[in-house]
Amino acid sequence: MQLELFSVGTELLLGEILDTNAAYLADKLSELGINVFYKTTVGDNIARLAAALTIALQRADTVLATGGLGPTQDDITAAAIADVTGLPLEEDPASADHIRDVVRQRGHRWLDSLLKQARLPRGAIAVPNPVGTAPGFILRTDDKAIIALPGPPSEMKPMFEGVVYPYLAEQVAGQGGAVLVSRILRFTGIGESQIEAELHDLISAQTNPTIAPLAKPAEVHIRIAARASDRAAANRAIAPIEAEIRNRLGDHIYGADADTLESVVGGLLRQAGNTLAVAESCTGGLLGHRLTNIPGSSDYFLGSLVTYSNQAKTNLLGVPAETINAHGAVSAETAEAMAEGARRVCGADLGLSVTGIAGPTGGTPQKPVGLTYLGLAHSGGAFADERRLSGDRLLIKERAAHMALYLLYRHLTGRPGGAS
Amino acid sequence: MQLELFSVGTELLLGEILDTNAAYLADKLSELGINVFYKTTVGDNIARLAAALTIALQRADTVLATGGLGPTQDDITAAAIADVTGLPLEEDPASADHIRDVVRQRGHRWLDSLLKQARLPRGAIAVPNPVGTAPGFILRTDDKAIIALPGPPSEMKPMFEGVVYPYLAEQVAGQGGAVLVSRILRFTGIGESQIEAELHDLISAQTNPTIAPLAKPAEVHIRIAARASDRAAANRAIAPIEAEIRNRLGDHIYGADADTLESVVGGLLRQAGNTLAVAESCTGGLLGHRLTNIPGSSDYFLGSLVTYSNQAKTNLLGVPAETINAHGAVSAETAEAMAEGARRVCGADLGLSVTGIAGPTGGTPQKPVGLTYLGLAHSGGAFADERRLSGDRLLIKERAAHMALYLLYRHLTGRPGGAS
Repeated sequence: MQLELFSVGTELLLGEILDTNAAYLADKLSELGINVFYKTTVGDNIARLAAALTIALQRADTVLATGGLGPTQDDITAAAIADVTGLPLEEDPASADHIRDVVRQRGHRWLDSLLKQARLPRGAIAVPNPVGTAPGFILRTDDKAIIALPGPPSEMKPMFEGVVYPYLAEQVAGQGGAVLVSRILRFTGIGESQIEAELHDLISAQTNPTIAPLAKPAEVHIRIAARASDRAAANRAIAPIEAEIRNRLGDHIYGADADTLESVVGGLLRQAGNTLAVAESCTGGLLGHRLTNIPGSSDYFLGSLVTYSNQAKTNLLGVPAETINAHGAVSAETAEAMAEGARRVCGADLGLSVTGIAGPTGGTPQKPVGLTYLGLAHSGGAFADERRLSGDRLLIKERAAHMALYLLYRHLTGRPGGAS
Repeated sequence: MQLELFSVGTELLLGEILDTNAAYLADKLSELGINVFYKTTVGDNIARLAAALTIALQRADTVLATGGLGPTQDDITAAAIADVTGLPLEEDPASADHIRDVVRQRGHRWLDSLLKQARLPRGAIAVPNPVGTAPGFILRTDDKAIIALPGPPSEMKPMFEGVVYPYLAEQVAGQGGAVLVSRILRFTGIGESQIEAELHDLISAQTNPTIAPLAKPAEVHIRIAARASDRAAANRAIAPIEAEIRNRLGDHIYGADADTLESVVGGLLRQAGNTLAVAESCTGGLLGHRLTNIPGSSDYFLGSLVTYSNQAKTNLLGVPAETINAHGAVSAETAEAMAEGARRVCGADLGLSVTGIAGPTGGTPQKPVGLTYLGLAHSGGAFADERRLSGDRLLIKERAAHMALYLLYRHLTGRPGGAS
C-alpha cells in the first residue's frame, strides 16, 4: 500500500505548532509496513487542499489527512474531499446525535453550526470521536481510499488506534502485505562518513533489510529496516546484518533502539556498584541534568559541583590555585583536579569533570572557543581528554556533556581512551 | 512571494524525528510576510524528490529545501535539483576548501566522498556552513529560485539567518510586498484561558494587527502580528495594542520577543550588581544549565551545587541533618537551608534552590510526584515557595527550573511572592 499523509491547518504553515501528528502517524504506518512517500502540509484553503489531494490520489492509493474537521468556517477538509471526489456532503445521523449528546453532557451552549461536523461525503463510514465532537471518516472510491481525522492529537490518536489502524492492517494483510521492523544501532566517537565507508558494501548491496545512517549532534544512528510477513521473520532478517555491523564497528556502538548514553552509563554504574560525582564548568549543570533524566539515577549519582568561577573551583573542589594559574582553568591539569575534587568531596567511586570555552566570547588564539577538557578520577588516579568542539554556545555545551559521558562510558567498558 | 517548503529525509517519513526545521522556517517566513501555501516532506529518493520539486516550481516562485545535502549516498537533494533544472553539478572550490579545512582542524580522517558536498548545480551561489561541512546554496533560474540548506538545525539556522533571511528580505522589498511584523509578549504565572478571557474583546475585534495566544510548557505567548507597507508602519500599528495588553496584564509579562526568563533574570542581576549561587536537587543541574545558556553569565553566576543525596545536602550545603529528618528532603525548610547554604559556600549575594520529586517513583500520598519547593536566600533571610507540578520526569524538571527562575524574577522586581 502507498499512502500519503496530509496535515491541514494554517497554524502549521505559520510555524506556531510542531506537527507531532505526522511523526506519530509515520511511526505507526511504518510499523504496518505501509510506504509513505510524501507528506503534504496545506493551510485552511479549500482550493489549495483540493489541488494537492488530486495530485496525491494520482500517486498513492490511500490518503490520510488530519485537521480541518472542526465546526468553524476555516475547517475545510470534508468540503475539499467532496470537491475532489464529486460526492455531496450529507449529515450522518449517528454523528449528529453524538454531537448533541456531547454538548448536552458538557453543558455547553448549542450552536447549529456544530452540526457541520456531521456532514460527511456520501458513502463515507464515520469514525466515532470518543473525546470530542468531530467525527472522522473513511471514504472508499473505486480503488482509492481517503481517511480524515481531527487535528487535536488527544482526539486523533484514539480514533486512529481504535478504527483506522485495524482497518489499514486488514487492508495490508488482504494485499499479502508485510510488516516493517526497524532496529537502531547508536554510534558515538565516529563520523557518519567513516561509518558509511566501513559499511559501504553492505549499504550498496542491501534492498531488504535496508541500512541507512542518520547523523545527530554528537552521535550517528544506523537504521536496519526489514520488511517481512511477520515480526519474527523481520527480526531474523535483521540479526545477521546487525551481527556483521557489530563485527566491524562494535567498538563504536554504545547502544540500540531507545538507549541513550546516560541510560547506558547509568546501567553500567549500577552493575558495577559504583557511585559517581561530577564537576562542571562550561556545561553549567547540563551533565548532571542528563544523568538525572534517568529514573532511579539517585542509586549511583551523588551530585555535581558546578564551579563556574575559578574561586569556586578552588574553594569547593580544592583545585590548587597554582594549577589554574600555571595551566589555566581550561586545561587537562584543571580537568583532572576537578574530577579528583568531585570524587573526594562527594565520597564517590568515580569523579567526572568538564571544563571548556563555550563562547561566543572568552576564546584566544591559544585556547579557542570550543576547546574542552574532560577529566575522570578513579581509585587508581586521574586522566583527561582534550576535544575541540564546534557550534554555538548551546551546541558546544551539549557536545561537551556528551563527550564527558562518552569518556565515562569508555572507562566503564575498558575501551581505548578509557584509562590513563 | 510564494514559497514552498521541502523537508527531505526518510527519517521524517518514518516518524523518527520531529520536523522542527519546518516550524522554525515557517515562523521566520511569516515574519517576512512570505506566503507559504504548501510544505512537502519527501524521503531520500531522487525520482520522488524531483517529481515533487517540479510540481512545486509550477505553483510557487521560490522553493526552500532542508536536508539531504550530506556526504552519503542517500543525500540526494543537490542531484534532484540538478535533474529538475537540467544544470550539471560542479565542484565549488571555496566549499571544497572549507570541507578540507574542517576535516583538518578536527583531526578527522579524510574521505574523498566528503567532496560530494561541494558539488553544486552550475550557477548556484554557495551558502557557507559555519558549523559543519555541507554548504547550502541559492540557485536562480529564470523567474524561480531554489534554496537548499542542510538538515541539522544547528547548521541550518545560522545559515538561514546569516544569508537566506537577508536574501529573502531583499527579494520581498524589491517586489514592493507588505511586511508582516510580529511582536511576542511573554507571560508566566497566568494561564492561557485567563489571558484570553482578559483580552477577549481585543482578540475578537482585531483583524490587523491580529492577536493570538500560544501556550508553552510553563509560559504563554501572545503574538501581535501587523501587516503593513513597511516595518515602521507595522510597529506603529502594534504599539497601542501592546500598551493596552500591558495595561491589563503587565504584571504577568516578563519579557518580549527573544527574551527568556534566564536572560531577563541575568539582566536584572547584572543591573543590581548581584551575584547568584544555586542549590539543586530534583532538577539535577538544569537550573544552572539554563542560567549559563546566557553568554556572559559568569559575570553574576558563581556556581551550583547539585546535591542529589541527603548526605551531599548536609556535607556540601550544610543543611542540618535534623532539618531533613524532621521535615524531609522535599520541604520548605530544606529548600530554605539549601538556598542559604549555596549563598554561603559560594559567597554570593543571593542563593536559589529547588528540591522536589520528579518521579516516576519516590512519591507518597503526603508528598506526591510533582511536589516541589523553591527557596531563595538573601542578605535579609530566606523564604520558600511550594508548587505542585504535573507531567513526566523531564517536564517536572523543566517546570521546577522555570519556577525557580520565576521566584528569583519576582524577588528582583519586587513583585508579589518575591519576598518573605
